[in-house]
Amino acid sequence: MSNAQLQSVLDHIDKDFDNSLERLFSLLRIKSISADPAFAEDCKAAAEHLAKDIASLGVATEVRPTAGHPAVVGKAKAGGRPHVLFYGHYDVQPVDPLDLWHRPPFEPVVTDHADGRKIIVARGAEDDKGQVMTFVEACRAWKKVTGSLPVDVTFLIEGEEEVGSKNFVPFIEANKDEFKADYVLVCDTGMWDRNTPAITTSLRGLLYEEVKITAANRDLHSGVFGGSAMNPIRVLTKILGSLFDDDNRITIPGFYDGVKDLPPDILAQWKNLNLTPEMFLKPIGLSIPAGEKGRLLIEQASSRPTCDVNGIWGGYIGEGSKTVIPSHASAKVSFRLVEGQDPAKIRKAFRDYVSARIPGDCKVEFGDHSAAPAVALDWNMKPLAAAKKALTEEWGKETVLMGSGASIPIVADFKRTLGLDSLLVGFGLDDDNIHSPNEKYDLRSFQKGIRSWARILAALAEVK
Amino acid sequence: MSNAQLQSVLDHIDKDFDNSLERLFSLLRIKSISADPAFAEDCKAAAEHLAKDIASLGVATEVRPTAGHPAVVGKAKAGGRPHVLFYGHYDVQPVDPLDLWHRPPFEPVVTDHADGRKIIVARGAEDDKGQVMTFVEACRAWKKVTGSLPVDVTFLIEGEEEVGSKNFVPFIEANKDEFKADYVLVCDTGMWDRNTPAITTSLRGLLYEEVKITAANRDLHSGVFGGSAMNPIRVLTKILGSLFDDDNRITIPGFYDGVKDLPPDILAQWKNLNLTPEMFLKPIGLSIPAGEKGRLLIEQASSRPTCDVNGIWGGYIGEGSKTVIPSHASAKVSFRLVEGQDPAKIRKAFRDYVSARIPGDCKVEFGDHSAAPAVALDWNMKPLAAAKKALTEEWGKETVLMGSGASIPIVADFKRTLGLDSLLVGFGLDDDNIHSPNEKYDLRSFQKGIRSWARILAALAEVK
Repeated sequence: MSNAQLQSVLDHIDKDFDNSLERLFSLLRIKSISADPAFAEDCKAAAEHLAKDIASLGVATEVRPTAGHPAVVGKAKAGGRPHVLFYGHYDVQPVDPLDLWHRPPFEPVVTDHADGRKIIVARGAEDDKGQVMTFVEACRAWKKVTGSLPVDVTFLIEGEEEVGSKNFVPFIEANKDEFKADYVLVCDTGMWDRNTPAITTSLRGLLYEEVKITAANRDLHSGVFGGSAMNPIRVLTKILGSLFDDDNRITIPGFYDGVKDLPPDILAQWKNLNLTPEMFLKPIGLSIPAGEKGRLLIEQASSRPTCDVNGIWGGYIGEGSKTVIPSHASAKVSFRLVEGQDPAKIRKAFRDYVSARIPGDCKVEFGDHSAAPAVALDWNMKPLAAAKKALTEEWGKETVLMGSGASIPIVADFKRTLGLDSLLVGFGLDDDNIHSPNEKYDLRSFQKGIRSWARILAALAEVK
Repeated sequence: MSNAQLQSVLDHIDKDFDNSLERLFSLLRIKSISADPAFAEDCKAAAEHLAKDIASLGVATEVRPTAGHPAVVGKAKAGGRPHVLFYGHYDVQPVDPLDLWHRPPFEPVVTDHADGRKIIVARGAEDDKGQVMTFVEACRAWKKVTGSLPVDVTFLIEGEEEVGSKNFVPFIEANKDEFKADYVLVCDTGMWDRNTPAITTSLRGLLYEEVKITAANRDLHSGVFGGSAMNPIRVLTKILGSLFDDDNRITIPGFYDGVKDLPPDILAQWKNLNLTPEMFLKPIGLSIPAGEKGRLLIEQASSRPTCDVNGIWGGYIGEGSKTVIPSHASAKVSFRLVEGQDPAKIRKAFRDYVSARIPGDCKVEFGDHSAAPAVALDWNMKPLAAAKKALTEEWGKETVLMGSGASIPIVADFKRTLGLDSLLVGFGLDDDNIHSPNEKYDLRSFQKGIRSWARILAALAEVK
């Protein structure tokens, strides 16, 4: 690849950007909510749409069935050169509470952010449709301008990332040989800030549990039974309310076993990044770091394990009042895990902790949604340096190597099933509202994201 | 009234019972859920239906507007004899969770209980439509057989009891003169057990609060913000989970101020009733009294103050998983109060307790649903002895004078606004599932309830 070729590709990207946007919008209009069975057909439609879009690059692409939502697989192989496996997902999070969206979540628009930035607003605008399309559009530009891609690419886009990839991982395992490559490119992470590109080199794991506590065999009147019959919400709140001590440490015995402090050099680098509550919490209306006392905010947010109750419900939650003692109460509880923590052990410790606190005449049931260990990537893998340089060139600012507080469980699965390391590059921002109402993706993230991948593909072609 | 007259009335009640049942069913078919604005028209329809039914006794009856659901007022006054104000309510509790009902809640049937009893199943079968109709049908029988009622009766049936009578109390206050009477008859309470009639002589009060805790200004992704941003469910569960100490006493400072122990003679009587967990809790699937250690189960259930979380919600509560940190979390929290507790003081103590535990960057909002003090009735009021004797004659078992754990706030309002004492007689049973799915009323409660009122009306005519 010559520099002139790359420049032509970048120019084409800018020239064709309105069409790139329209292609992204077509994908955003499909309601591919993987968590809700009511949207299964929409998930299929999204897979088919995306397969057609990738096929339009001249790449042999199929919608492939799994035991759940289908995957999209495309292969552009010439041989004799680096071969990357590109991973992303077309499924999105549920949209509730719908009434907090300023516009319908599946009718994408480009609009103005309060601070003047142009933003794309829609469910999936960032996570992960927008990010996936940065890569697809970069490939399209290379193909259009030069007739081929700089490296061999296998596209692998799944439809169950937001629900734990339960059927996707067996699909990879069953088709290992197909997905051999040199390494994986994942586009599902963020930048350090609006102007500073980043490569994510560690990811927290995720253990996601559901707890249901049952007391009486039916709902009760609190006048008749209040005071004498156990209320399952009382049991549940007592247990969940005891999960943190006064130093904001999690009280489950053994929870911190195996958790290591950051190496001093990394800690020093992170200290230099000087992440303040003013920068990180003020935009969301908060000011007091809620994590372990004595830890940097950036540690709390990315290198320390956490616990969050993601949902809780029980009894009467409608308008007005009802003097009921419900029969049962439930919660969804998740833990972000770090290197050294075994999800299975944490699950057992959590369940033991809860079970030990259930009164003798009540019962508890557990459900599991996902269990993925943390991932620490190889900071010395060769493509990393190449990608870092390419990103720095595009953004005009040194690329940060950072830890992410989020989990991309598939990264561990790629290592385990295919033996492949992953390179995590993405263009999300902290204020993108992913998983929330009014999800957005900066128009600049989308455009420079495409340009970034165009540069990275060129750079990776040179890595032997 | 001669004994022969009473006997004719009782015979007529038995002979006409199928028609009484059909008249109750007509009322049960109306979806008069007062808590949900969607059912406002149904509430109006129930008022109109009931007014027509009472008018059919030859009683001048009107549907009277209030600022909320209307009231039904009927007047049967001859003068020169005792005058009772009969109170009940036509509104019912919401029916959710609907999927736990074995049949549609507004399609009443007579069916067999597992133990062979005949039962009427429908929302409101007991609370309070079935109970109201025991009195109406007793009046109908007297009117049919003798041409008149034994005493003057003002009927006053409201439509907002289940939502705190907020508009009904001002309605009484605005029309005080109309509702002058010697005392009130209330049919909204229960029997001691299936064979033992009871008059309720004390009622717990009710303070019902709503709490909403807000942390971030929007829902957050727990990967990005987990560990650093406060989760409002964490705040809420920590506060609610701390409301009870290890002896099951409520921890809010001042909560027990003014609460007195039972007089030794009443305590002795209650001890004799020997209410066991086997009798009271086993039918609902529980075995361990959840109230204050060192108190009798019957004290826990009726003479001690309590706290229950009646509803809690926050975050993602749909199927599957969502890694969200919600912006806010809410709970409905109620307190059953006893003599000596001031609802306003308890409200302030509760709100202070919660507010003191809100992190500096979060906020709390409170809503109030109802605040009614406990009521201790006059054990020496004259009609009480007459009604007690009449009940004992009907049921062939000595009538118990008991405390109720439930609240009928209107009883305090009658005392305050009209200066009237109330006599509380009812035929509900602990297993009636009021406020729960599959509410029922024993067919025997309905039939012998009508007969009981027929006897009580005759007995009250003799009380000077």
